[in-house]
Amino acid sequence: MRAAVMRSKQLLVEDVPEPSPGPGQVLVEVIACGICGSDLHALKFPDQMAASAEASGAPFVFDIEKSLVMGHEFSARVIGFGAGVTDLREGDIVVSMPVLLAAEGIVGLGYSNQYPGGYAERMVLSAPLCIKVPSGLDPRHAALTEPMAVGLHAVAKSGAKPGDAALVYGCGPVGLAVIAALRIAGIAPIVSADFSPMRRALAKRLGAHEAGDPREEAAVAAWQRIDGKQPLVLFEAVGVPGMLDRAMRDAPRGSRILVVGVCMEPDQVWPMVGIGKELNLQFALGYEPAEFGRTLQLIADGQIDVEALITGEIGIAGVPDAFRTLASPDAHAKILVEPALG
Amino acid sequence: MRAAVMRSKQLLVEDVPEPSPGPGQVLVEVIACGICGSDLHALKFPDQMAASAEASGAPFVFDIEKSLVMGHEFSARVIGFGAGVTDLREGDIVVSMPVLLAAEGIVGLGYSNQYPGGYAERMVLSAPLCIKVPSGLDPRHAALTEPMAVGLHAVAKSGAKPGDAALVYGCGPVGLAVIAALRIAGIAPIVSADFSPMRRALAKRLGAHEAGDPREEAAVAAWQRIDGKQPLVLFEAVGVPGMLDRAMRDAPRGSRILVVGVCMEPDQVWPMVGIGKELNLQFALGYEPAEFGRTLQLIADGQIDVEALITGEIGIAGVPDAFRTLASPDAHAKILVEPALG
Repeated sequence: MRAAVMRSKQLLVEDVPEPSPGPGQVLVEVIACGICGSDLHALKFPDQMAASAEASGAPFVFDIEKSLVMGHEFSARVIGFGAGVTDLREGDIVVSMPVLLAAEGIVGLGYSNQYPGGYAERMVLSAPLCIKVPSGLDPRHAALTEPMAVGLHAVAKSGAKPGDAALVYGCGPVGLAVIAALRIAGIAPIVSADFSPMRRALAKRLGAHEAGDPREEAAVAAWQRIDGKQPLVLFEAVGVPGMLDRAMRDAPRGSRILVVGVCMEPDQVWPMVGIGKELNLQFALGYEPAEFGRTLQLIADGQIDVEALITGEIGIAGVPDAFRTLASPDAHAKILVEPALG
Repeated sequence: MRAAVMRSKQLLVEDVPEPSPGPGQVLVEVIACGICGSDLHALKFPDQMAASAEASGAPFVFDIEKSLVMGHEFSARVIGFGAGVTDLREGDIVVSMPVLLAAEGIVGLGYSNQYPGGYAERMVLSAPLCIKVPSGLDPRHAALTEPMAVGLHAVAKSGAKPGDAALVYGCGPVGLAVIAALRIAGIAPIVSADFSPMRRALAKRLGAHEAGDPREEAAVAAWQRIDGKQPLVLFEAVGVPGMLDRAMRDAPRGSRILVVGVCMEPDQVWPMVGIGKELNLQFALGYEPAEFGRTLQLIADGQIDVEALITGEIGIAGVPDAFRTLASPDAHAKILVEPALG
């Protein structure tokens, strides 16, 4: 089958072996799979990614010199069955957390040399982790469950509650997911910042009360202007060196900073800034299974305007170009890979 | 009166103007004042200290080129009164948080160009902040209230509870205060690490179940050997660059790191390590008024063996030498300045 394959820091469209569902697994046809910033990181910094996965015990153990099909934000149609699968039928449209329960252990789908992720025509999923997409929900929208769940999780980890204000640095897909989750949690005002006018417009559409250009007004100054009084929770969703320091300097005394932007490089902080203000830094990754399921329901209920986030749709052949385009992401939020497009 | 004066990164013994108690203040005679690592930092990095105080809104605004009498861990005897003081009598022995309520606002005692700290014969205190030392308690021991309260506060901020284990990096006065507070909170095991054999012995005396040399066995390996199962809370009480990274790499998934060691220099961290394990970094500084009062009571009740911490006693004339000695602190925990010693 056709797939976009990462190998030795390159991305190529190739034929790869057809996956075969084992016990408790289903074979699915990928309908849509979002391109995630983590995949751009993985292509650019595969060594750091593999090393930090190992350091943190994440189930992303891969050999960067061997073929790997990325893609972990997918919706798919069930077309085949391994032994012992009873709850799914052919044609069911499903989403799943990107985790496979395999004979050799837990596999992180999208970062495995053995099992393909969603930048392929087909993949295998664990039947117990599949959630049927509610009828009437566009499967393209269901593919946004995974990245939106990241926002729901970060907001839950933050402990933000009505009466708090939020500052969101960065309005890429992660920042936008955070903004959507903050709106659902009843947080106001939500003040956000991004260099891209397109992303700022999306931030407002998803629920930000303010979306400014930090070159014109510092994000924290915008919060001071609009509010400046409520307890503030800060979300770092940019993920480049220097942003932790920025957030720590901006944070009011005693506040919490959620670090949800994935920075692959080392970063410099001034501990005295954190100590002087007794700050709390909470790093967040992924989501809980219940948060994943709840996010799908929120999307089905129209609570998150995911259509607005889809700024491009391509076939597998278009993946390498899309990665190059997303390296300067000003014009995009989420690009969906849809194998049916070719 | 005589005082140890910091000016332009130098420490000199000089005569300084006699302080005079304003309304609501008392004049006190210093009995004992501990030398704090922060004072060593202030002498070495006064610019960073002043800058970070300003950035964090702390009431430590001072001109490093002007005279400043440090010393913020004191016990003292009341000898004079400003207007409106009714609850204190001549001869009362008191401690106070190192904060003065003055006409011009809140002053951080020990980091003020205007009001002397405890490395002087006399100082003024705010009467409402003075706590009488329980009768029978050695005033030298009462002077340890301030540094021990830092440990009580850090442990409270950590949320550590019986059933958790603790790892304490560094057994200087801050680490020892943390160990004492962990023991009082019922945390076990308490695993600590320090290069100094003297400090390791003190750690055990104050309640650590293990105190190892990290050059022989990594602190986290010692915890793995002894326990390795209970939820772990980590306390960074060294305060030199690299320790945050050390703690983040050692921390089990989902754990909390209390940053209580004061690192004045920039430090490098790998955000991916924090993200991959969803770590929480809580920076801590100082204590709440109630924690200060409770610490004095715990010392009076014999719950913290502060006598063990006093490794040196000097007069004001000895302060410059003591600062030099503490630059290589292996042989000391707490040196007390006792003006009566000359």
